[in-house]
Amino acid sequence: MSLIDRILSPRSSSRDGARTLRVGIAGLGTVGAAVVRMIERRSAALAAATGCTVRVTAVSARDAKRDRGIDLSGFTWFDDPVALARSEEVDCVVELVGGSEGAAKEIVEAALAVGKHVVTANKALLAHHGNALAKMAEARGVSLAYEASVAGGIPVIKAIREGLAGNAVSRVYGIMNGTCNYILSRMEAEGLTFEACLKDAQALGYAEADPTFDVEGFDTAHKLAILTSLVFGVEIDVEGVSVEGISAIQPLDLTMADELGYRIKLLGVAQATEAGIEQRVHPTMVPKATAIAQVMGVTNAVTIDADAVGELTLIGPGAGGDATASAVVADIADVAAGLVRPTFGKPVARLAAPRRVEMQRHEGGYYVRLTVHDRTGVAAGVATRMAEREISIESIVQRRSAKAASIDPHGLSRQPVPLVLITYAATEGNIRAALDAIAADGLLAEAPQLIRIERE
Amino acid sequence: MSLIDRILSPRSSSRDGARTLRVGIAGLGTVGAAVVRMIERRSAALAAATGCTVRVTAVSARDAKRDRGIDLSGFTWFDDPVALARSEEVDCVVELVGGSEGAAKEIVEAALAVGKHVVTANKALLAHHGNALAKMAEARGVSLAYEASVAGGIPVIKAIREGLAGNAVSRVYGIMNGTCNYILSRMEAEGLTFEACLKDAQALGYAEADPTFDVEGFDTAHKLAILTSLVFGVEIDVEGVSVEGISAIQPLDLTMADELGYRIKLLGVAQATEAGIEQRVHPTMVPKATAIAQVMGVTNAVTIDADAVGELTLIGPGAGGDATASAVVADIADVAAGLVRPTFGKPVARLAAPRRVEMQRHEGGYYVRLTVHDRTGVAAGVATRMAEREISIESIVQRRSAKAASIDPHGLSRQPVPLVLITYAATEGNIRAALDAIAADGLLAEAPQLIRIERE
Repeated sequence: MSLIDRILSPRSSSRDGARTLRVGIAGLGTVGAAVVRMIERRSAALAAATGCTVRVTAVSARDAKRDRGIDLSGFTWFDDPVALARSEEVDCVVELVGGSEGAAKEIVEAALAVGKHVVTANKALLAHHGNALAKMAEARGVSLAYEASVAGGIPVIKAIREGLAGNAVSRVYGIMNGTCNYILSRMEAEGLTFEACLKDAQALGYAEADPTFDVEGFDTAHKLAILTSLVFGVEIDVEGVSVEGISAIQPLDLTMADELGYRIKLLGVAQATEAGIEQRVHPTMVPKATAIAQVMGVTNAVTIDADAVGELTLIGPGAGGDATASAVVADIADVAAGLVRPTFGKPVARLAAPRRVEMQRHEGGYYVRLTVHDRTGVAAGVATRMAEREISIESIVQRRSAKAASIDPHGLSRQPVPLVLITYAATEGNIRAALDAIAADGLLAEAPQLIRIERE
Repeated sequence: MSLIDRILSPRSSSRDGARTLRVGIAGLGTVGAAVVRMIERRSAALAAATGCTVRVTAVSARDAKRDRGIDLSGFTWFDDPVALARSEEVDCVVELVGGSEGAAKEIVEAALAVGKHVVTANKALLAHHGNALAKMAEARGVSLAYEASVAGGIPVIKAIREGLAGNAVSRVYGIMNGTCNYILSRMEAEGLTFEACLKDAQALGYAEADPTFDVEGFDTAHKLAILTSLVFGVEIDVEGVSVEGISAIQPLDLTMADELGYRIKLLGVAQATEAGIEQRVHPTMVPKATAIAQVMGVTNAVTIDADAVGELTLIGPGAGGDATASAVVADIADVAAGLVRPTFGKPVARLAAPRRVEMQRHEGGYYVRLTVHDRTGVAAGVATRMAEREISIESIVQRRSAKAASIDPHGLSRQPVPLVLITYAATEGNIRAALDAIAADGLLAEAPQLIRIERE
């Protein structure tokens, strides 16, 4: 059965002439419970909007006895989520188990294999197995929907796939991890260290006990890989994402950013270049006046540069039970309305193979913070090495700590001092080569800090 | 044929087993020409995304001979756009003629009457005849799509109707007129008068020769009426929109706004209250730190307050040929994919009758700028009248012009001076009654300036 035939005959059961979409939910954590409540609360509105009654019929979770504040008595309980995925009483399987392997993968594969629609919030699963799963969905003519997997409650997948159907996109970038944006916002507002803000984020429930996945950028990389595939029509290539987290950002970097007219955000950026598609996650200097620079706290934002609309920015909640459930239910509503679109915007066979671009080839402006020995001629030495690599410098700022200045106003004791440079567009390869030369010259007291600048 | 049956059998012609959607375009101005080019440029992508070939087959415009930079030789030319709307070689009619009456209305009615899908960018037509047209579309089971009619290239209709299907919305507000936002941005940045900025906007092509429709808020009112219907599931009631433009805003208001932590934007606001749905267009003080306050120049932005996602803001281009064409082509792609949704989110018979709320009942904070005689006790007199109406004052600022201060530092010559108040939430009725009393007391040298404050 072709994709189009499937659009014309959605797999939902019919009773009394009206259609019903029977939803099975695997995973009843915060999001799962919110989805159950939302489908009940919005029952009439969903039916009016889609012409189809949406009804939860089956649920599965690890602990049948836990009180989730919802009445499960009307649903069939499955201890085994894979059995739920195969159940005859389910038309659409909602996977909220999480993780790229194990149960989540088995559930989704089982559901697609028997031709059921799948709605998932699982970015790790999509990032690692999206190509194979999209193929399965396409073969069966069913939906594999994943609005909730990127930027939580922001309908960014729908905006790109459908709202920008007439556009070729040249770049997509965004703040897609609330934990990192919360930490950077606090560091900036209060002059605190990364470690102090991380602790607060953990106390407030914004960060996990093991925060590596969030703060080192891997969560953003998963989301970016999904967006890249959709935006550029290429197979998902999460291994091709260059990833750098925010743990090395120091309060001084935020102070300098502020002085120079920037804010620091952890961005995921996918960009079409002549050499291929750059996929990169890194702390980024963004001009203060841009919409994305205003996004503070746990809020997410995605900006899309498209040939016809120009710049489109979507700002909203990136996490939370209700916000994530909102995206899940929007996907369910599309299934209920009979909408089946190719998972990544086009048939899998027509997705291009990814063409990776090494970060060395990335071209852009750079913020370079050096910790240099306070000697005459250091700035000149640094500038010379930059010039040798054809790197033009937009500004250069030398700072002396208040303490050093008071103890030793002439720098005779040679305390290391920060030297900050903003460069015009240069390749990462040239910047790194210049920094290597500067280090070899013995000018540096510490490893250099390098932050990429992203302009509008 | 029911709506659902129509979803299952989209009206598009089939050749060689693959589907083709034949598009007829009425109106070949900037937007129409951009649509023709975009469909050609994105032909392969649209087919891949929708499973349907999208092809322009017919066009109509006033002047067949005008050079539009596009080759029309492959299309059937219609001198009469109504004949195009009824043509057997068109499945989907794109109405880009404009205006709420006359040709545009005839084209859309003719197309819907014979069961053709309609895509339009015409906010005036929707605002004035949306209910009747939605009924016609529903009776024939076809799409009446209008993404381009609100906020140009921003896919806000799709985001609300589909992306927020799981949400109840309590408020939607936005900057939906680029002309007004351009003028206010320039007035703020350069301290210029409304008249000076309007002239520049006209010279740059951002404002019409007769700017009334834009600057007095009517354009925004049309767009707001459409959003209100979609968001709250009520019949369109453009007559129920309270409208106030920006022509009375003075440079001093922008200066005071800045000092008090606000920017002034022309907002359209639709808000659910206990008494009904407020629909209002007026210059508005928005806190500087909000996303919408950052939106400068001709850019548009819409914020939606929804129960599950919280706050969602979409920012992008509100006008321009390519941006508007982007929204038109997105609608065409939905039709090509076989998606038919109820025009205003639910069947017409289930749209609620509008329940208007008089502006007198509006409750919110107010910026009140009085021009008072510079006498002792004036501020006390003003505050007393406010207190009588139970209006609490958050701040009060008295200004003396530099000129007056230098000539007459003690105010003995009694030159009128500005007195600015920011109130806590109060009803418009009470504010106006207090101002009447203040005027009756003989304290005012000029009519008062009243600007509503919209908080997050």
